[in-house]
Amino acid sequence: MFALLPGNILSNYLNGIKANKKALISQMEAQTKSLKNLEEVEKIIGYGFNDRSLLYQAFTHPSYHKDCVSYERLEYVGDSVLNLLITKEQFCMYPNLPPGLLTPLRAANVDTEKLARVAIQHNFHRYIRLGNPALGKQIQAFIDVLPKHPLHSHGLINAPKVLADVVESTLGAVFIDSNFSIDATWEVATDLLKPIITPEMLQTNPVKKLFEICQKYKLKVKLVDQWSEEGTYKVLVNNKLKGKGTCREKKEIALNRAANDAYKEVVRMMSRESLIEAR
Amino acid sequence: MFALLPGNILSNYLNGIKANKKALISQMEAQTKSLKNLEEVEKIIGYGFNDRSLLYQAFTHPSYHKDCVSYERLEYVGDSVLNLLITKEQFCMYPNLPPGLLTPLRAANVDTEKLARVAIQHNFHRYIRLGNPALGKQIQAFIDVLPKHPLHSHGLINAPKVLADVVESTLGAVFIDSNFSIDATWEVATDLLKPIITPEMLQTNPVKKLFEICQKYKLKVKLVDQWSEEGTYKVLVNNKLKGKGTCREKKEIALNRAANDAYKEVVRMMSRESLIEAR
Repeated sequence: MFALLPGNILSNYLNGIKANKKALISQMEAQTKSLKNLEEVEKIIGYGFNDRSLLYQAFTHPSYHKDCVSYERLEYVGDSVLNLLITKEQFCMYPNLPPGLLTPLRAANVDTEKLARVAIQHNFHRYIRLGNPALGKQIQAFIDVLPKHPLHSHGLINAPKVLADVVESTLGAVFIDSNFSIDATWEVATDLLKPIITPEMLQTNPVKKLFEICQKYKLKVKLVDQWSEEGTYKVLVNNKLKGKGTCREKKEIALNRAANDAYKEVVRMMSRESLIEAR
Repeated sequence: MFALLPGNILSNYLNGIKANKKALISQMEAQTKSLKNLEEVEKIIGYGFNDRSLLYQAFTHPSYHKDCVSYERLEYVGDSVLNLLITKEQFCMYPNLPPGLLTPLRAANVDTEKLARVAIQHNFHRYIRLGNPALGKQIQAFIDVLPKHPLHSHGLINAPKVLADVVESTLGAVFIDSNFSIDATWEVATDLLKPIITPEMLQTNPVKKLFEICQKYKLKVKLVDQWSEEGTYKVLVNNKLKGKGTCREKKEIALNRAANDAYKEVVRMMSRESLIEAR
């Protein structure tokens, strides 16, 4: 169901308080002189824009300048297009997979971490027009931690939303610029998103790894869901606390963090035991 | 983030335990002899299928017959296509509306109640292949209560999911059959979904009505959110409990029900008071 629309904001929009688009574009262009040329982005994504102002918009964070149109609307469209593109692709690729298995597969290909990785992989971060230096630091911290998790970390690392947003806004911009062509948008998306996450890649997630190792060593695992109260998951192995994960935004990430924590602890435990046995 | 994929189910699918499609279709066709002819649905939606087995699939509930392919995968695709179609339409129609206002507008046009109404409006319920008689009763109960809420009830009535599913699966079937044409799918969707809910129509929701009447009579309103604990919302008017709404599935529906309850109570209160004053 839907939430309330604040009446005054809505009527302002509906009554058409429209910004002067031309003036905004020239202002935006003046402000980007010191930045890397966005034409380079066209080469990266392999798509030349008919209306290049869409590309500028796609790379403009809301913090950049109050008079610039930010990527928010393009991101909204891009999110929806990307969702359909992955749905279509996986519908054709896995003709027998039911929605219960297609849903997590799609989610893994469009989630914040996957898209933030895509942004870094293609150097999008060098072109984002940002007004908030804290975001720049978050992006750098993400880049620094990536080598530790060469594939999807399953939420173990914090991916800055701005990076994922820019991938979505770029796809939204291509969709609009190409006169709503899902084929043109897919051409761009399929190159950007490589490698597309497959069902086999999903199998390596921390919860599965934890259960497998515990089964191997005949250990009893219990997952304690305290997410709605404290944003945490706890993992008990043979009734002892071995892992704890926190993520207030997403329950699954808290669970994955707890499972990863416990998995490492079990590995430590078992190698210590085998050392003792070997003496 | 993504949940675990059950390994055995997955590998069954991945290893290609494929049903014999031809045999299934002939079986499905045999079973539908007693049903209304689905060709009529083609007339209703204004689209003739190249592969009519998709249309049969779109109208087959999972309870129908274990050997029939149900609408689940088509519904999964249709949900995604419909989401993009409404996004695209509203992006063009409201060039200045930010995502914070576009999101509830899209939600209202694709939610279960809206789509269930669409199904009834176009007689889809007469063609659904169901194996569970309880669902048929739920559909009838929904039809019976509709005259009390000629427009969207904002979650005050229970809409059977199967009805919304069939609208989505039909759109999914058209999308696939038309070789993934969003234009062809939009042609069908735009006729089915009329009237598309506008920002003005969203303004009539129960919470807004409650706040307006309380402002008019200078009454103090307080919304008490007990949704995560009990699935309920309570409404206090001048510190007295005047409304209560429950819906474990959706917080907004619980809120709307509580607000509607309180609104009716305030109307009653105020008309009683004006009667006393008039004496």
